[in-house]
Amino acid sequence: MELIAELLNITAGGRRIAILGEETARLLGVHSSDRIRINYCERQIIAIANLAAHFPKNRIGLYEEASETLGLKTDETVSVHLADLPESLRHVRAKVRGERLREHDMVTIVKDVVERHLSEVEIAAFLTALNIYGLSMGENEALSRAMVETGKTLDFGEAPILDKHSIGGIPGDKTSLLVVPIVAAAGFTIPKTSSRAVTSPAGTADRVETLCPVNLSINEIKAVVEETNGCLVWGGALDLAPADDLFIQVEYPLGIDPLLLPSILGKKKAIGATHIAIDIPTGNGAKIKSMTEAYTLASDFVDLGKRLGMNIQCALTFGEQPIGYAVGPALEAQEALAALMGDGPADLKEKALSLAGMLFEMVGVEGGRKKAENMLQSGRAEKKMREIIEAQGGNPRIKPEEIPVGDNMVEVTADQAGRVLWISTEDIVQIAKAGGAPREKGAGVVLKAKLGEAVKKDGALLEIYAERSSKLESALELAKRLQPVVLSKRPEERMLLDQVPEKIAGEQPFMLER
Amino acid sequence: MELIAELLNITAGGRRIAILGEETARLLGVHSSDRIRINYCERQIIAIANLAAHFPKNRIGLYEEASETLGLKTDETVSVHLADLPESLRHVRAKVRGERLREHDMVTIVKDVVERHLSEVEIAAFLTALNIYGLSMGENEALSRAMVETGKTLDFGEAPILDKHSIGGIPGDKTSLLVVPIVAAAGFTIPKTSSRAVTSPAGTADRVETLCPVNLSINEIKAVVEETNGCLVWGGALDLAPADDLFIQVEYPLGIDPLLLPSILGKKKAIGATHIAIDIPTGNGAKIKSMTEAYTLASDFVDLGKRLGMNIQCALTFGEQPIGYAVGPALEAQEALAALMGDGPADLKEKALSLAGMLFEMVGVEGGRKKAENMLQSGRAEKKMREIIEAQGGNPRIKPEEIPVGDNMVEVTADQAGRVLWISTEDIVQIAKAGGAPREKGAGVVLKAKLGEAVKKDGALLEIYAERSSKLESALELAKRLQPVVLSKRPEERMLLDQVPEKIAGEQPFMLER
Repeated sequence: MELIAELLNITAGGRRIAILGEETARLLGVHSSDRIRINYCERQIIAIANLAAHFPKNRIGLYEEASETLGLKTDETVSVHLADLPESLRHVRAKVRGERLREHDMVTIVKDVVERHLSEVEIAAFLTALNIYGLSMGENEALSRAMVETGKTLDFGEAPILDKHSIGGIPGDKTSLLVVPIVAAAGFTIPKTSSRAVTSPAGTADRVETLCPVNLSINEIKAVVEETNGCLVWGGALDLAPADDLFIQVEYPLGIDPLLLPSILGKKKAIGATHIAIDIPTGNGAKIKSMTEAYTLASDFVDLGKRLGMNIQCALTFGEQPIGYAVGPALEAQEALAALMGDGPADLKEKALSLAGMLFEMVGVEGGRKKAENMLQSGRAEKKMREIIEAQGGNPRIKPEEIPVGDNMVEVTADQAGRVLWISTEDIVQIAKAGGAPREKGAGVVLKAKLGEAVKKDGALLEIYAERSSKLESALELAKRLQPVVLSKRPEERMLLDQVPEKIAGEQPFMLER
Repeated sequence: MELIAELLNITAGGRRIAILGEETARLLGVHSSDRIRINYCERQIIAIANLAAHFPKNRIGLYEEASETLGLKTDETVSVHLADLPESLRHVRAKVRGERLREHDMVTIVKDVVERHLSEVEIAAFLTALNIYGLSMGENEALSRAMVETGKTLDFGEAPILDKHSIGGIPGDKTSLLVVPIVAAAGFTIPKTSSRAVTSPAGTADRVETLCPVNLSINEIKAVVEETNGCLVWGGALDLAPADDLFIQVEYPLGIDPLLLPSILGKKKAIGATHIAIDIPTGNGAKIKSMTEAYTLASDFVDLGKRLGMNIQCALTFGEQPIGYAVGPALEAQEALAALMGDGPADLKEKALSLAGMLFEMVGVEGGRKKAENMLQSGRAEKKMREIIEAQGGNPRIKPEEIPVGDNMVEVTADQAGRVLWISTEDIVQIAKAGGAPREKGAGVVLKAKLGEAVKKDGALLEIYAERSSKLESALELAKRLQPVVLSKRPEERMLLDQVPEKIAGEQPFMLER
């Protein structure tokens, strides 16, 4: 049926929605929420039909997501039909029944996710089934390839192309801000794309954004990498593996992450990475709690990398407390820049040197760790970082103390003297977020003592920073309630961890950042 | 924030949607697709926010589903906030992780489904997880009770209240049209509510609607039952267990049916049934393929019935071919009425007498089967059916041939002589639907030979009826391609059922009608 388009200037979080009058819908055989196929010139989309009692019968109203994809102007004529059920739905149902999917099936699903042929209900069922049954390595491979095929790719020329990735979960993990300049300073190409925080107080993109712009176009990224060998940019708007972004929208409210492997490696494949160091923080403060789990995940990464033609090594790293002392975009950028300038916390530098050294060895450098130390100590890594900051449009001469942090600060002190027995990474995350991180970049937490360190009575445990005094107050209140830093003179004084049902432990927080 | 409501007269298949201007959304901290809480007078709803670039900043646009629930008129002022995540989401996540839910958790989920606090994505994940893990009997009970609590209930006075239910799946199953008048004629109360077809060519409500109205209000139903002891009405608009209707909306596209037990027994509990005969058609043409499966399901029904305080017996019935000869609303009503008048197919009468007899025995009648035969043969069941038809607003003197069927008819004949070896119920369903059933009530299929019956070369296999000649043609074409009735002189002539991969067998059709 031919209908005249009316552009509605309404958005629905990416969903493509069309409004039809009730009579028009009846003639098309369309019920409310049915899928319809809309053709305009050479383009075709699938949209969800909503019905309106008094909508003109020769017209179709289009939400922005629908009209933009069609490239439509108002009052142009489109052709509208009831859409068939997509073939991919058959494969989704098969997965819900527990069947193994073939490569072709996975490709069909991913294509239909990107084309919006599958509804969110169907995507939710697919992801829930994957989360429960797990994925075979063949399915992981097929999904990774399909995600790459349905998105944009980047080509940085000749191999090797190095990359570093952390599965995340540890607050204060600013390691990439050291690894990228160390590797690039040695002459290797390392085009690092990162995410912003979803549930954490800072993503790498948020940290770097306090130093220079991170929202670069593909061409701008190429220019930066050509000039400096590296970059530290936001990957979210580059349309690399767009299916993954759609999957994440559905996974997030459900607290599931079945596509950890294909999501990470699909994006690495899309930027042409050949050698990748993957950091798996392991411990009670991390996503992965035990070494056994960490080894399993690591060998899955290595296997999937091989299948996708990428050389992967995993680093199992200490994940019982935040990395360094600072948590929050600006505070972390300060700490990372200080570390590049020769100062900064030992654990951060140690972690960055281990990962950079691993990458060097992977591409054939003997004594990789030594080389990494050399780059850091000689100041070449700092120089490289400043080149990258300048190439991305920031001030290359910035000093750590010039990165603005929140004006409002309060110190949390110890009630008793003792040594730090335990730091709850989860509580630190909540406190930093209550202070305003990541949206308010100057907000966050600075630890004043880490595991094993001695604290005097009334000595500082942590500082909270906020841009707004109201947020500082709520963060402080939260800190007092949660008591994220546990002290003790002797371990046997604190054997009771929790009481049930006196105080039911909260649900384990879900952390999707990869 | 106080906003002025603008009623949009748009519906979204039951979803509650609100439109906010972008600036207003920013002030509220709302992103596109976030949940918002809208208060008006004493009422509160949760709605999904869609954002509009040019929407006035002091206004909120409401889809009909949202404004109707609030009882709002346009230009009234409502109070709007970003909604918290519902507690039930924690239980949904627990089920996705495979945990067993307690009664309180299930109640919370069902309430939030009815109140629209859970999104379709979250409901889809919940149902998928239930489908994969299965439900414990405790979970089935909690779900049944929660579905009853969140809906309307009916009270037909003193026990016993009898009922009959088929899990469905067999085309032509018009047994309820005989069982209800047989039971009511003997003086027992049997207030039968039925569904319309979702995927089948006829539901009981569709069949009865060719005889009299079925869309009765609760008060009308009470009057009918008071007068006649029985009724045959559509249960869909009575708001019994409304959660179930919302679950079905999500289950249908996914082809899953994890809530079979609580869905059926919840609705029976809501009408106050005390003694229920449940028909489980078993065989290749049915939902349940083997006796083993059927026994398991039957004992689950009996157990759950006990927990809910209802006496249940299950009948495992022959499910290898359609019941009787007719398939399609009007054709089936003709056949059922003929059977009540003493004519009609033997298998239909046999099945109805078995089920009615079972019900009589359950309420203490000795020789239940005998009593059922008595009611049928004496004409008292026919008389009762005509009373029910009249009480519901139909013509009590209607003759079978006066029920209008499609003007267009075509016969499908046999290429060879032989005996009927196999009838594909699935193919019969597809052909009747291609002919226009259930929407076109006169459309359908009449079998001219059933299992074991002899057919001559060029003898009739089936007749197809349609209201429109174009549909008759497509149904005929489909019948020729599918060949739903398989003949053979000797079984050994047809040992090959299918070839793989020459012809990939289609997905097993999903049948949700309960």
